Amino acid sequence: MNPPANVPVRWEKGAERLLARTRVLEAWGRDYRHPVRGTEREFVLIKAPDWVNVIALTAGGQLVLVRQFRHGIDDFSLEIPGGAIEPGEDPVAAGVRELREETGYAGTGARLLATVHPNPAILNNRTHVVLVREAAASGGTDWDPEEEIEILTMHVDRVLEEARAGRITHSLTIAGLFHFEPLWRAGV
Amino acid sequence: MNPPANVPVRWEKGAERLLARTRVLEAWGRDYRHPVRGTEREFVLIKAPDWVNVIALTAGGQLVLVRQFRHGIDDFSLEIPGGAIEPGEDPVAAGVRELREETGYAGTGARLLATVHPNPAILNNRTHVVLVREAAASGGTDWDPEEEIEILTMHVDRVLEEARAGRITHSLTIAGLFHFEPLWRAGV
Repeated sequence: MNPPANVPVRWEKGAERLLARTRVLEAWGRDYRHPVRGTEREFVLIKAPDWVNVIALTAGGQLVLVRQFRHGIDDFSLEIPGGAIEPGEDPVAAGVRELREETGYAGTGARLLATVHPNPAILNNRTHVVLVREAAASGGTDWDPEEEIEILTMHVDRVLEEARAGRITHSLTIAGLFHFEPLWRAGV
Repeated sequence: MNPPANVPVRWEKGAERLLARTRVLEAWGRDYRHPVRGTEREFVLIKAPDWVNVIALTAGGQLVLVRQFRHGIDDFSLEIPGGAIEPGEDPVAAGVRELREETGYAGTGARLLATVHPNPAILNNRTHVVLVREAAASGGTDWDPEEEIEILTMHVDRVLEEARAGRITHSLTIAGLFHFEPLWRAGV
């Protein structure tokens, strides 16, 4: 690693105010002061609960996937299952819950595989990636009123191909695959 | 692949209205109607310009990285360089520009490696991943007034290790690494 060309300093956080609120997000303006330059500025950030995404691996080496209409891109998207973590909920428990609610699948040995930031520049939250093994259809789904989800399974090798071919595009699903791929290649 | 358990339909897009605007984002409310159920509902989405992230590979197998204070997470983040694409700007040209402006590095053979969606549920935009080879320091930086960036280089193998160890957490940087890793492993 080269020596740093410049060392950025930590801005000092000031007051913050709610600008707008939706069902799942809040926009906040937050004052920051640069401790060296003395600059004061409001930065806008989006507050969201932490999210969880689930790598649900079947005994046959398939992953459980969901395909949904996504209003952000006004189109369909193929993703690993996931959702928002409830206040106080353990990330692994949340992953197990979201997997069951969205797909009806359950498995064994659920554990935290990785934690990423969806977007450190504009979002305050994290996404946890939970690995579940021996995933199998085990009951009905429990969707929100407007949820409509195609549930499918696809072999891990093909999921990785689809992602690398640009047919799985959600960056958080891709981040989950990035963290899972070495385990898969190592046969762990 | 199993047969689908359920096939989601495409919602019909209606009118939309601007709810809030910041320097880099806009929140819009958009009406949607479900063509089967007849449900009508406003969904909130964030409109942002497309972004570009750059895998800048040096002749010695290092990647150019940037470390910045990020107001979303109120902390520092180590990332690949990138930024917003200007209206009408070609993604590859934007990647070359952002690399030069943020880090002073330039290279050869710039090309589009992949395109992902930061978050299909809430964001309308895409992030393009641009690969630049033979990257080398070639001039000064051109930062925005409040930008303050540590520029460093790190061998690709170590970057992948840092990401898998949870010390590089930006999901869009990780998505770039996901798409670059097979080329790196193949020595392409």
